[in-house]
Amino acid sequence: MVKALLFDVQGTATDFYSTVCEEAARISAGRHPDADWGEFVKRWRAGYFVALEAAQGSGWVSVRSVYRRALDTVLADCGITGFSDAEREELTLAWQRLRPWPDVVPGLTRLKGAYTLATLSNADVSAVVNISKRAGLPWDAIFAAEMAGVFKPDPAIYRLAARYLGLDPADIMMVASHKYDVRAAGRFGFATAFVARPLEFGPDGDADVAYSDEFDVNAADFLDLAAQLGC
Amino acid sequence: MVKALLFDVQGTATDFYSTVCEEAARISAGRHPDADWGEFVKRWRAGYFVALEAAQGSGWVSVRSVYRRALDTVLADCGITGFSDAEREELTLAWQRLRPWPDVVPGLTRLKGAYTLATLSNADVSAVVNISKRAGLPWDAIFAAEMAGVFKPDPAIYRLAARYLGLDPADIMMVASHKYDVRAAGRFGFATAFVARPLEFGPDGDADVAYSDEFDVNAADFLDLAAQLGC
Repeated sequence: MVKALLFDVQGTATDFYSTVCEEAARISAGRHPDADWGEFVKRWRAGYFVALEAAQGSGWVSVRSVYRRALDTVLADCGITGFSDAEREELTLAWQRLRPWPDVVPGLTRLKGAYTLATLSNADVSAVVNISKRAGLPWDAIFAAEMAGVFKPDPAIYRLAARYLGLDPADIMMVASHKYDVRAAGRFGFATAFVARPLEFGPDGDADVAYSDEFDVNAADFLDLAAQLGC
Repeated sequence: MVKALLFDVQGTATDFYSTVCEEAARISAGRHPDADWGEFVKRWRAGYFVALEAAQGSGWVSVRSVYRRALDTVLADCGITGFSDAEREELTLAWQRLRPWPDVVPGLTRLKGAYTLATLSNADVSAVVNISKRAGLPWDAIFAAEMAGVFKPDPAIYRLAARYLGLDPADIMMVASHKYDVRAAGRFGFATAFVARPLEFGPDGDADVAYSDEFDVNAADFLDLAAQLGC
């Protein structure tokens, strides 16, 4: 009997693709009419994963600094010139302003009556706090990789969340649109929920949305998750 | 210009005296007609502080285990016999069910529009989550000593909260009814708010409620705090 649900934030609860695309276009202010902002965001996100992997084992680095450093490379690779340092800082802050998918607030609101709801995000604590406050996400607690000093899917972060909740792993369900995250939580003993986010990388993206019997729940969105969990 | 408020929980946001008194009387179920539950709670809280002090520097101990161990001594000292192990566990859980003072939910609700609101509690994360969910306390984040591995007033916990918020100390105000906590936060560079809680130790208690110019704000309760902060 699951008592608490832990949610991934970047991609699962929030739509970084459209948020960051719009911020980039806004800051560009018409200076880059040929830029493919969708491709730019996909590359930035990929650069983040590469930098995160490289950072593993070498002490804590803030995710904000990871995005900021990856940005310079991605802008150059995309041939996008003319962004000042201040504009690059401002653009990096877009990751602290991610908008939720439309089902997220109503879904969480339904789930909140029956379950403890918390984040378990690789984003910085401050980013998750800022995203959640701006969007009105009704978490009972915010947990993030920064608190464990390692990133998902390191088992230490799932262990820390269980300790902070005062619950056994079997009492906790991990909810994410990324199978590596759900699988790692499952290996640690959590119940598992996969949520499909077909637009995570935009309309032409290649998000993995295939349901799988290996997960306890496969859901189309947070409202479907709530329905399947009896809320 | 303060952007975030951090709140002590046990005593400042919640009324442990009446909550734990009632739980003790309920579990006693009439077996201890002469017991002075108010005195019992005061001694239990004092035993907690002694054990916490003794625990400093010797690694993390859960506050739940601190209360549980202190309970045996306090029951014996008060001459209260007959509580089974299961009843002692149940009574210890009262600290995870503390009720807020009546001004807390309306005060926080008013403050939430203008400030990021988080706990900074010596209680276990799970206790703060359980208290907050049960009472509907509208925090944006839950921070607790357990995340720093040391208890207030160790400066490490104020430092950690500032890092998690992504803010400079001067952007943060510590709110507590305990001067040692407010003072330690002030020494770290936080703005300071003292809230008087005259009933913290019951109607005949000796809570320190004297306002002092050393604090940026002195408030009668959370509604007064909200008014003084322009909410």
